[in-house]
Amino acid sequence: MRARSLVAFALSVATLAVAAQDPAREVPARTLPPPDTASPEIQAREGRGVAATWNVIPNTTEEWAALAGRGGGAPGGIGGGDQATLDRFGVKSEAMTVNGVNTYMLTPNDIAPENRNRLLVHVHGGCYVLGGGGVGEGIRMAGFGRYKVLSVDYRRPPHAFYPAALDDVVNAWKGAIKMADPKNMALFGTSAGGALVLSTVHRLKQDGAPLPAAIGSGTPMADLTGHGDSFATNRMVDNVLVGVGRCDAMAEYYAHGHDLKDPFLSPIYGDLHGFPPAILSTGTRDLLLSSTVRVHRKLRQAGVDAQLQVFEGQSHGGYNTDTPEGKEAFEEIAKFFDKHLGR
Amino acid sequence: MRARSLVAFALSVATLAVAAQDPAREVPARTLPPPDTASPEIQAREGRGVAATWNVIPNTTEEWAALAGRGGGAPGGIGGGDQATLDRFGVKSEAMTVNGVNTYMLTPNDIAPENRNRLLVHVHGGCYVLGGGGVGEGIRMAGFGRYKVLSVDYRRPPHAFYPAALDDVVNAWKGAIKMADPKNMALFGTSAGGALVLSTVHRLKQDGAPLPAAIGSGTPMADLTGHGDSFATNRMVDNVLVGVGRCDAMAEYYAHGHDLKDPFLSPIYGDLHGFPPAILSTGTRDLLLSSTVRVHRKLRQAGVDAQLQVFEGQSHGGYNTDTPEGKEAFEEIAKFFDKHLGR
Repeated sequence: MRARSLVAFALSVATLAVAAQDPAREVPARTLPPPDTASPEIQAREGRGVAATWNVIPNTTEEWAALAGRGGGAPGGIGGGDQATLDRFGVKSEAMTVNGVNTYMLTPNDIAPENRNRLLVHVHGGCYVLGGGGVGEGIRMAGFGRYKVLSVDYRRPPHAFYPAALDDVVNAWKGAIKMADPKNMALFGTSAGGALVLSTVHRLKQDGAPLPAAIGSGTPMADLTGHGDSFATNRMVDNVLVGVGRCDAMAEYYAHGHDLKDPFLSPIYGDLHGFPPAILSTGTRDLLLSSTVRVHRKLRQAGVDAQLQVFEGQSHGGYNTDTPEGKEAFEEIAKFFDKHLGR
Repeated sequence: MRARSLVAFALSVATLAVAAQDPAREVPARTLPPPDTASPEIQAREGRGVAATWNVIPNTTEEWAALAGRGGGAPGGIGGGDQATLDRFGVKSEAMTVNGVNTYMLTPNDIAPENRNRLLVHVHGGCYVLGGGGVGEGIRMAGFGRYKVLSVDYRRPPHAFYPAALDDVVNAWKGAIKMADPKNMALFGTSAGGALVLSTVHRLKQDGAPLPAAIGSGTPMADLTGHGDSFATNRMVDNVLVGVGRCDAMAEYYAHGHDLKDPFLSPIYGDLHGFPPAILSTGTRDLLLSSTVRVHRKLRQAGVDAQLQVFEGQSHGGYNTDTPEGKEAFEEIAKFFDKHLGR
């Protein structure tokens, strides 16, 4: 391997003599094989080309509505989960309105005895616009973790803009804490859902409302201002988000002209003191690797019991899948909640 | 930013149509600015060109001896720390032989009251060959963490080859546990030192010797066989190790023909059950990011209380420096030890 790299990089080394005088680092083109240190399932996912639509951005409200999926961002659009997935995980899904918000209660056939009085609230991802984020993650958590999970079907653009999604998650939470003791409850989600988990805590703190006993924030879109080193280092390395592109355009569309640095949109810019114990998840190829580790560091600086798990060779949200690493990730999150939730 | 990226990647997108049929991902050349989300000190480090010697490999024993530094790998070669650094951290350094091994006892002027009966053992880095790894990290831990630290000056090539370094760390540990209760002791190090921490635990387990109460393994060279996705993804992104090159050649030189997959050389391939609580540290630009997160996952799979911290925008060993992030990293490690060590 060494001999090969010596030959392959002979040209690059000549270039680097220039780079030495330039604080911007010149990284040559490279070919990345799928990571043989990940499971075959993750290798297959990483072996796909980059998402074809990563930088295709709608121009009209109709195009945005089509992107948002069934219902054009209106409640009911994400559905309660496909029956095959529900069956595979042994989970029942029921639509219900909680404090005026559309939700799905996901109940596993075998709730763990220690989880009988516990309830998790799930916030799906999808760049604030996509319906496809859906309840899949909630089903996995219900199945792997044997918890009851209430998944929030928050309103999305172009049906409703900021702060509709945040309002819906906050209101669903405020309704859910009448169904269980908040000391026995956690809030979790991935990507836009991971950011909404954090911004919901900001809002609950502001309102003086009961906080979750723990939170799980997976690869959160915690900084919509474009800052974060992995936007550069993992550009084109991540085959899901790929680069700053459509997902960020969707978040900006949701923001609807509101300041992107507002902690209710970019929760990393808020005060994280007093946050509940938190578990953060990401992958080494994730475009939001930096976003995730920055939130972890800032939580630790604020004295919060915060745990970080980074999965090998995974692009954005890679752990939020039916893979061995997905099982591992959700079991870790479930254990973390078990440690911090009352019974 | 979106508009710019649309233009900049027009050409790349054409290329990606091909990539979609090829499981190997084609990542175009890119320019990385220093990470503005890290401290100015880390930005300055990352703003340097890549290490000029990253792929320059010695040919003769004399060249290897020159690389090993003063003493050509013999004990005494790393020195006890420069006086300016010792003074700055308020640490005293004394050379002493422990169980036949050359060491330096690093004693802070103000040992924390809870640390009076505690002792940390430090294993320096330097790809198994460099003397420059030295005691700097031990001094930082003694200063930031207010612990007594015994830093092991293990033998290095070409003075001595595998398993000399491992033998020396193991023997220093076996001597050190006569100076303090192993329940009050931790073992820590970075890079080759981080790997030696892990391989030492493998050996102590094999010997039935007392284990440390906690370990700190920073960006460990835990897999010398070339596996790990960040060898590809962070190639030329990390300006310290840069790519598979000289550092790996040094480790191979130390291995001296021994199987690189032996857990005493690549500790990730050993059985990690029964390992002490562990804190792992790395950076998002680190060539050994994958090595570090793989060890973290494998420890967690083995049921070990293992914590991971990943610092934003840092190349290999970036936290092991006199930077704000360095202070933060060592304070986190010190806190982790405080939680797990007896008094």
